[in-house]
Amino acid sequence: MYPYCLGIHQFPYVDYRFLPHMPCGYYSLKEGRWFWRQDALGAENSNPPHAQQRLTFVLVHGSWADAHFWDGIAAALRRNGHTVYTPEYAGHGEDPNRNVTHAMITQSVVDFITRLNLHDIILVGHSFGGTVIQKVAEQVPDRIKRLIFWDAFVLKDGESVSDEVPPQTRQGFEQLRASSKDDTIMLPFPLFRDLFVNTANLDVARQIYAGVVPEPAKPLFEKLDLKAFYVLPTPKSYVYFYQDNVLPQGEGFGWNPHMSTRLGQFRLIVGDGDHMTDSRTRPAMVAQKLYEAGRD
Amino acid sequence: MYPYCLGIHQFPYVDYRFLPHMPCGYYSLKEGRWFWRQDALGAENSNPPHAQQRLTFVLVHGSWADAHFWDGIAAALRRNGHTVYTPEYAGHGEDPNRNVTHAMITQSVVDFITRLNLHDIILVGHSFGGTVIQKVAEQVPDRIKRLIFWDAFVLKDGESVSDEVPPQTRQGFEQLRASSKDDTIMLPFPLFRDLFVNTANLDVARQIYAGVVPEPAKPLFEKLDLKAFYVLPTPKSYVYFYQDNVLPQGEGFGWNPHMSTRLGQFRLIVGDGDHMTDSRTRPAMVAQKLYEAGRD
Amino acid sequence: MYPYCLGIHQFPYVDYRFLPHMPCGYYSLKEGRWFWRQDALGAENSNPPHAQQRLTFVLVHGSWADAHFWDGIAAALRRNGHTVYTPEYAGHGEDPNRNVTHAMITQSVVDFITRLNLHDIILVGHSFGGTVIQKVAEQVPDRIKRLIFWDAFVLKDGESVSDEVPPQTRQGFEQLRASSKDDTIMLPFPLFRDLFVNTANLDVARQIYAGVVPEPAKPLFEKLDLKAFYVLPTPKSYVYFYQDNVLPQGEGFGWNPHMSTRLGQFRLIVGDGDHMTDSRTRPAMVAQKLYEAGRD
Repeated sequence: MYPYCLGIHQFPYVDYRFLPHMPCGYYSLKEGRWFWRQDALGAENSNPPHAQQRLTFVLVHGSWADAHFWDGIAAALRRNGHTVYTPEYAGHGEDPNRNVTHAMITQSVVDFITRLNLHDIILVGHSFGGTVIQKVAEQVPDRIKRLIFWDAFVLKDGESVSDEVPPQTRQGFEQLRASSKDDTIMLPFPLFRDLFVNTANLDVARQIYAGVVPEPAKPLFEKLDLKAFYVLPTPKSYVYFYQDNVLPQGEGFGWNPHMSTRLGQFRLIVGDGDHMTDSRTRPAMVAQKLYEAGRD
Repeated sequence: MYPYCLGIHQFPYVDYRFLPHMPCGYYSLKEGRWFWRQDALGAENSNPPHAQQRLTFVLVHGSWADAHFWDGIAAALRRNGHTVYTPEYAGHGEDPNRNVTHAMITQSVVDFITRLNLHDIILVGHSFGGTVIQKVAEQVPDRIKRLIFWDAFVLKDGESVSDEVPPQTRQGFEQLRASSKDDTIMLPFPLFRDLFVNTANLDVARQIYAGVVPEPAKPLFEKLDLKAFYVLPTPKSYVYFYQDNVLPQGEGFGWNPHMSTRLGQFRLIVGDGDHMTDSRTRPAMVAQKLYEAGRD
Repeated sequence: MYPYCLGIHQFPYVDYRFLPHMPCGYYSLKEGRWFWRQDALGAENSNPPHAQQRLTFVLVHGSWADAHFWDGIAAALRRNGHTVYTPEYAGHGEDPNRNVTHAMITQSVVDFITRLNLHDIILVGHSFGGTVIQKVAEQVPDRIKRLIFWDAFVLKDGESVSDEVPPQTRQGFEQLRASSKDDTIMLPFPLFRDLFVNTANLDVARQIYAGVVPEPAKPLFEKLDLKAFYVLPTPKSYVYFYQDNVLPQGEGFGWNPHMSTRLGQFRLIVGDGDHMTDSRTRPAMVAQKLYEAGRD
């Protein structure tokens, strides 16, 4: 019998495909398998593995990404019994047309949800995807059980994404936009590497950047009418990763508390990741945080 | 001989009742027991287990709680050799009278300390308990070795707790207060679940909520004279849990740095918990943080 | 075959001298050695050990410290294959002259770099050392691959360090300065213990304090011309430890985001340490964070 324990805070993030069945247990030579120690770390961690409430997630990606952004996270959620959808939206993925509006993007997600007749969904927006789920929620509020913003924009009524980035970033975006032929913005690698995947090693940073294509600029500058959003009674959560470096962390900018507090009453969940790296390197950790944000 | 190590940052939080004696060691089949590896992770963690300075803690709970809030934490502290007291105060626990003032609450704790003739105490306040230890410290400063505020209010002279919550929360409190028959405030479960126990699973959230009773409203709205507190030379610590969601984390509100900096020179200790969950699910972690805040 | 895993987030910080070769693997009795499990936690942690890009670090310490501050961190970096220099500067270490200026300090580091003809260096400044690397970078920009500020001052053009500490701290510094015979400032132990090594146990705090000598006061009050710094295109990183208690964490003061955002585009890396403790107790953790901040 050989005791075995993972670090107490870490076990929810383990990728269960690859591990002995239980994060803290022992291996019986006689019986040839691992046992969970009910009497061990359970005292300090009340979530036994594999006991997750089954939820239906709809995951909406952000800019400079497509629906494959969610591949690892969706797989991790499905392993825990959840139903997961990752709709693509206008101007992204296979769509050859980059001349899109914010309304077209919203419509893609609304159509996906209504075509599949989804109900009781946990609607998750990452980054720019926050603005998308704000608008989607206005159109199909009765289908949504909870909204989760993960390092995502929560715009005020009448604001655009570009209103929420520091002046020098907005200037940079405007220059990149002006220099493109098709009204898109492509992130230079050095900026992407230090702001979007700052905790990644270079190989991972390059792998993620290899999938980055120019982002349609217009939706980033469109001011959105969000009066209907701000009277929705839908429960809301904010997942904040404290190494996220896309926006300055405070002093009038940033994800939390600057944008999260606009949600009014919301559930906060904090993790140690950055903006994009963990979707690739620690998908089970992200999935766990989204689950913590989404469960009843 | 079978090596065995816990995650290097986590070991202080392990509940030693349930674990092999040492967090990083090996098991000798021959001798039938575990050994601590002095040459192993000791290099990165200078605190050997069970080497804690013995302290006397007096733990003062917050609103929507009673002295049992501390049960797990007090047990964890006692296992490490500390003396721990968890006084109940007026209007809480078995006290049938909910018509209490802040002065009556303070008096309960002062009386407890003087009746038992306690000295050299580490006086800990959680949440609303911060305002209580501010006032207690004014009355029995010579009995206090150090004050610890754990996600606790540090009011300015002349302020009330309700002055330190965002306007919409204050409005909510006023409505709940007006709708009660006995001038109390009861938290609705959805608010409690997302703000006070946001990281808990639903079972734990419900268990904790089952112990919540209506809170006397008056002490939350009383403005306190704290001139004497702000000239006390007593050493002070602030323990901040970064998933605490009771107050917005910044932009003019919140525990740290907004209220902590009012202490002047203080020791900061940060953990990853929320407002109430960890008292139930990770009491040894909380106990370790309070010890780190309280030791010489 | 005996499975063995460290906590998934922790393994980069392990001191490899003392551990079985691989943080997550198994031990083969037959072959008498440990194997790395490619199929195990690798899925959630993309950095295999010992695969670090080789870098050249020049480490510049802060106030109330000398070059030995870096001993453990430098050793940890060297074990991972890096070249590491820890120059001493004027008024510190063996230098008997405490009557120094900021320019003399800068010159010490510039001379060290040019005498050894160092190139492609990762220039790291801790605390006050941030102001030093700002000025060094102005003089030898072509030798620097990246600047790393670790809980370090990033002064605005025309500012002094004393402009960036809260009024009561500045007052305290001025009083301590006035009471010294040689225009130095000595930190009283209680202040050092709660602000600089707040997470340490008392023994470690005393050990570190035993090496503290009075700091030349003048460079802390000198206003620096930093116009040249603010047009340098050198890549920059900021390493922030969230238990650092030397400056208030926000509300117009502090390391991150208050000073970090002055760098413009920078890479952010966050850790859970304080200002000085981890240099002594977890040098491999600090080394890993500096590596993450410095790699391409």
